[in-house]
Amino acid sequence: MFPENTMMGLSEKTPSRICMIVVDGLGGIPVKGKTELEAAVCPNLDAFAKDSVCGRNVPVALGITPGSGPGHLALFGYNPMTYQIGRGVLEALGIGREMTEFDMASRANFATLKNGLIVDRRAGRIPTEENERLVKKLSEQIEEIDDVKVKIFPGKEHRFVVMFTGENLSGDLSDADPQKEGMPPLECKSNSESGSRAARIVNAFITKLTETLKDEPVANTALMRGFASLPDIPKMSELYKLKCGAFATYPMYKGLASLVGMEIVDCGATPESQLKSLKKQGGNYDFIYYHYKYTDSRGEDRDFEGKVKAIEAFDKLLPEIISQNFDVVCITADHSTPAKMGAHSWHPSPIAIKSKYEMTDDVSVFSERAFESGALGRIWSADIMPILMANALKLKKFGA
Amino acid sequence: MFPENTMMGLSEKTPSRICMIVVDGLGGIPVKGKTELEAAVCPNLDAFAKDSVCGRNVPVALGITPGSGPGHLALFGYNPMTYQIGRGVLEALGIGREMTEFDMASRANFATLKNGLIVDRRAGRIPTEENERLVKKLSEQIEEIDDVKVKIFPGKEHRFVVMFTGENLSGDLSDADPQKEGMPPLECKSNSESGSRAARIVNAFITKLTETLKDEPVANTALMRGFASLPDIPKMSELYKLKCGAFATYPMYKGLASLVGMEIVDCGATPESQLKSLKKQGGNYDFIYYHYKYTDSRGEDRDFEGKVKAIEAFDKLLPEIISQNFDVVCITADHSTPAKMGAHSWHPSPIAIKSKYEMTDDVSVFSERAFESGALGRIWSADIMPILMANALKLKKFGA
Repeated sequence: MFPENTMMGLSEKTPSRICMIVVDGLGGIPVKGKTELEAAVCPNLDAFAKDSVCGRNVPVALGITPGSGPGHLALFGYNPMTYQIGRGVLEALGIGREMTEFDMASRANFATLKNGLIVDRRAGRIPTEENERLVKKLSEQIEEIDDVKVKIFPGKEHRFVVMFTGENLSGDLSDADPQKEGMPPLECKSNSESGSRAARIVNAFITKLTETLKDEPVANTALMRGFASLPDIPKMSELYKLKCGAFATYPMYKGLASLVGMEIVDCGATPESQLKSLKKQGGNYDFIYYHYKYTDSRGEDRDFEGKVKAIEAFDKLLPEIISQNFDVVCITADHSTPAKMGAHSWHPSPIAIKSKYEMTDDVSVFSERAFESGALGRIWSADIMPILMANALKLKKFGA
Repeated sequence: MFPENTMMGLSEKTPSRICMIVVDGLGGIPVKGKTELEAAVCPNLDAFAKDSVCGRNVPVALGITPGSGPGHLALFGYNPMTYQIGRGVLEALGIGREMTEFDMASRANFATLKNGLIVDRRAGRIPTEENERLVKKLSEQIEEIDDVKVKIFPGKEHRFVVMFTGENLSGDLSDADPQKEGMPPLECKSNSESGSRAARIVNAFITKLTETLKDEPVANTALMRGFASLPDIPKMSELYKLKCGAFATYPMYKGLASLVGMEIVDCGATPESQLKSLKKQGGNYDFIYYHYKYTDSRGEDRDFEGKVKAIEAFDKLLPEIISQNFDVVCITADHSTPAKMGAHSWHPSPIAIKSKYEMTDDVSVFSERAFESGALGRIWSADIMPILMANALKLKKFGA
């Protein structure tokens, strides 16, 4: 792939407009001979494929199954092995918290301590309501440690997220969670010189937390892991000189878009409200990231028929999404989620790019196997942005 | 390709089992319109292709013809440009010597010296029996130099191998062979600080050898080149958490397998004894490397019909090889050996992977050209292991 810093010198601002539609987890593998896409009736996707150049894209590397973080970073044009997003950051984004350069976040579990040893790493998977009560209690007791603001957010069952805000808070810290029962919690240590202050704050927080919870019958401590601050990542506006708007309904994807500097447009919670927002505010941007979630959700549920229906529902929305005045439209996914596996997978994602300057091919069916013979071939996800930029005539010649 | 050290963090131990069958030098180019695979009648390979995802793999880079060392390292998941195996190590492995971290090996030629100048770099290609006599004479005279043990092994005609065993013996040394006649032998020099002791030992060895052979009429000195110690290479058990068993009949391939930490299973010398060993001991391993040699041998002989027959003979063995309980089976080669060229070549090797989680394609013939339209496309050999690991569900997600 082309290095990001070289891209910066080639990109230029023009009035042309790009739309990248991410149909999350779109690709699958056959069940009774057909993939979800092959089983779905999707005339609009097929028509789009017919007018497009088609192919398949690999998010990270062959055989590697990406999380949503690396999958999206690659689609946005970043090498997902260079820019890694820590667990804590993703957790914070996932519950809808925006992060700045002064924030450092960690995921945490309520746990049970007895005689100094962990006897239950998940505190009996306490109910979410109990979790909320404990987080409220902690939030009242611990607001700040040494000028560092502490915010605690409940998750589901025993899970919660802690966000530390202050100067010089490196997330390069070792886990305080030994990942085993019968052991004491670990001291959080700094992996680098810059992290020593952060490690001290974290350890003080854990001490104070355990003190606050000491009379709780089950959840009397917490195990913290995945400390992370924002990766140092150039914004899409710098790399591509694009004004980017993110149209997504789930916190995680809004968070990932905000990481690379996109403006997050309020889209409500349904595909209908999302489409309405696009129609109303899409015109403000020259790059639109449009995220459709349900294909991934049904794949994760191992629900083949449900994923087929989610594809068909997306197909019905498609004409309206692309009815805006775009010069280049790309439909693809951040990773495959085959219903047969009920999880993200390593299989390449189908990709179709429609542009008046792109070579077309004979593909007229939108599916994994039809796209095997597409003219785009198999590409890395991180190569997509340069191709879209090129088709929007936003990239100068490289070299004379 | 995916970096090895990151792979280590993703791989996990599971009960699933992988079989990698390497049909050495399998690929070819057409003679009278057909390649060896196209001319062969191989119903079992065709059936395997029909049930598999097919493609072609490039061992090192386009246009680059690999030796057996880089070809195999790439198949085992290593970047063959990062981990280079020195000539001396390959020579030692080829004659069936195991090497440890204390060994340094070199290939050598008997040569003829006159008035201090080399007049024949190969000592008239002396007969192998003469070589054996000289090696015996040398071995009696030179057993040790400065606490470094010296062992000498005869090869064919003028060729032999010297192995030095001791502490701190770097193989990073310049050749003592000037590669030209009419010149004096070169002094062996260290390319790095760590090699100075080794250079001294080698030069002392050459002096003692020439002294011992001074009355020989033809072979009165030796030229040494390709000094090498073991590369510092992580074991497959560390990278992939696999228990690997190598089923091979030729020393070179057992040696290459032992380099990456596989257990070498005694297989006798024939395809029949090899199959018998697999049936008896294959169950002990969750990764099996199965090597078939004769396709390469006949290709090297420029024997088109012989290579066709070797393919057909392998085809008959195939059902029994894969009848064990494998979750993922891959058939490919370490490089092509077209009979038309009588040598290794740069052409991609056919590859077929059978797994219940892999996308299938329309390919139902096992051949170079049929595989051009396979869904696996053209991949690097070093990407094969991640794909096999993924299909065996032995790789965790990358990033959250």
